[in-house]
Amino acid sequence: MKCKRCGELAAVKLPSHHAGFCPGCFELFFRKQVETAVRRHAMIAPGEKVLVAVSGGKDSLALMRVLSDLGHDVTGLHVHLGIPDSSDPVCARTEAYCRENGFALHVLRTGDVGLAIPKVKAAVHRPICAVCGKIKRHYFNRFAYENGFAALATGHNLDDEVARLFANVLRWDATYLGSQGPTLPSEGRFVRKIKPLYRLTEFETAAYCFLKGIDHWKAACPYSGGASFTGHKKLFADLEHASPGQKIAFYEAFLAKGREHFAETNREGRQQLTPCASCGYPSSGELCGVCRIRALVAK
Amino acid sequence: MKCKRCGELAAVKLPSHHAGFCPGCFELFFRKQVETAVRRHAMIAPGEKVLVAVSGGKDSLALMRVLSDLGHDVTGLHVHLGIPDSSDPVCARTEAYCRENGFALHVLRTGDVGLAIPKVKAAVHRPICAVCGKIKRHYFNRFAYENGFAALATGHNLDDEVARLFANVLRWDATYLGSQGPTLPSEGRFVRKIKPLYRLTEFETAAYCFLKGIDHWKAACPYSGGASFTGHKKLFADLEHASPGQKIAFYEAFLAKGREHFAETNREGRQQLTPCASCGYPSSGELCGVCRIRALVAK
Repeated sequence: MKCKRCGELAAVKLPSHHAGFCPGCFELFFRKQVETAVRRHAMIAPGEKVLVAVSGGKDSLALMRVLSDLGHDVTGLHVHLGIPDSSDPVCARTEAYCRENGFALHVLRTGDVGLAIPKVKAAVHRPICAVCGKIKRHYFNRFAYENGFAALATGHNLDDEVARLFANVLRWDATYLGSQGPTLPSEGRFVRKIKPLYRLTEFETAAYCFLKGIDHWKAACPYSGGASFTGHKKLFADLEHASPGQKIAFYEAFLAKGREHFAETNREGRQQLTPCASCGYPSSGELCGVCRIRALVAK
Repeated sequence: MKCKRCGELAAVKLPSHHAGFCPGCFELFFRKQVETAVRRHAMIAPGEKVLVAVSGGKDSLALMRVLSDLGHDVTGLHVHLGIPDSSDPVCARTEAYCRENGFALHVLRTGDVGLAIPKVKAAVHRPICAVCGKIKRHYFNRFAYENGFAALATGHNLDDEVARLFANVLRWDATYLGSQGPTLPSEGRFVRKIKPLYRLTEFETAAYCFLKGIDHWKAACPYSGGASFTGHKKLFADLEHASPGQKIAFYEAFLAKGREHFAETNREGRQQLTPCASCGYPSSGELCGVCRIRALVAK
């Protein structure tokens, strides 16, 4: 197979785009997809500072690289969860990557704010992934807000977004359907959330890392039962295999023609939020979810 | 496994209902599902005459039986398509079934109205299944309208409905999403369309026929490439296997919480229809689709 762009030997085959690319042209393709996402969904205005949530996995490291290559002002934030045999090496790998590439990186240790995940796991009686996600989202947003970042970028890819959309469709959850998308505007103490990789599949970010020699962390979290939405991702992989391009078509059709039908319900259905009595961030109760968890752990 | 209702040996296992049933109790369950569908979606008012579209397959024969057992006034209409080696034996089997069970049955031969399907297939340059479906829908509705039936019942089951819903969701087709459902109200020369089996799966109608000794036609149409939406049905079969009850939950959630969001667009998006200059039935052009096909065949 030949590269669609330059005619050299192709290294990556992309049936959904009826194309194959050599390494150099694949990188151009990848960058172009991110550029399109950023432009179409008003993710980053010129000169704005962007905080990138960096887990150390393929998506977040690729995101740092590509946003920087596109000329954006990026800073990483890695949240060290305090999980034995996992958090230390993941953090070291992330720090090494940012150092070698000249990316600014901050590390926030949840243990320093009373929320080391092993202690949280022992204290709460809910699935730890949901609780850990809540804590990470809180601190990513808080760090961005308190340090003047205009946007928080996460490495969610097309497979993540399609699986989440499908989960929301299966329940016909109008509130979630009305707000799902690649850009969530800022509101009060919530900074703008953006997903610049939403047009790229897991396979494509993995290929990008491989071709760029990005040494990302590959092991799953020892506390998780594997990746989220595994079943739905498998299902859409089958669909994509049968008709290439179906995933991006489904998601883009949702953005163009589906989401608007849920906008009104989303406005009505959102909970009224007031400042948390402890941390001051938006909360549905007197204490926000994270401060309630911290209180539980402290007991 | 024991029957959930009477404790005898179960013959049918239904993970989606956390139940197994003996033959007698499965029949009660089956009837109950149809009763619920008819009541919840105002399908049939007391004393109304119902025309049942009878292809001779498992779903339509089961539908005749169960609606009759529930005390409804049912008449069958079989459309003989004129397909060699297929239409004659299917029609004979359908006639025998109705005769043995004392059901009134009418047979309409598309060849008598200039639309034998082999001739249609030779004249049109589109997939024959879509064209054949259009012709059948036209004549089922027309027969019902001209003979004073209040409703036209079809044998669409849960798998059919879920696959169709998923196809509409994949394209985010708001007009179709706004009108999909187990009951489509009458409007002008369109009689009410009802799908009393929408809460029962293909497996359940097959089991019903097997246990009731209903000798239905099993071969696929020689002109079709197999059942419609095969890929989507396989996909939801996998989902159902992983979490039993997902199919009915998805469809019922759509009816309860999803469909309403598309109602407005459906009203706006529907084409303005005027009477066909030839047959008088609602049409988007001067001649309706069926009369246009007939003209093509006549040439």
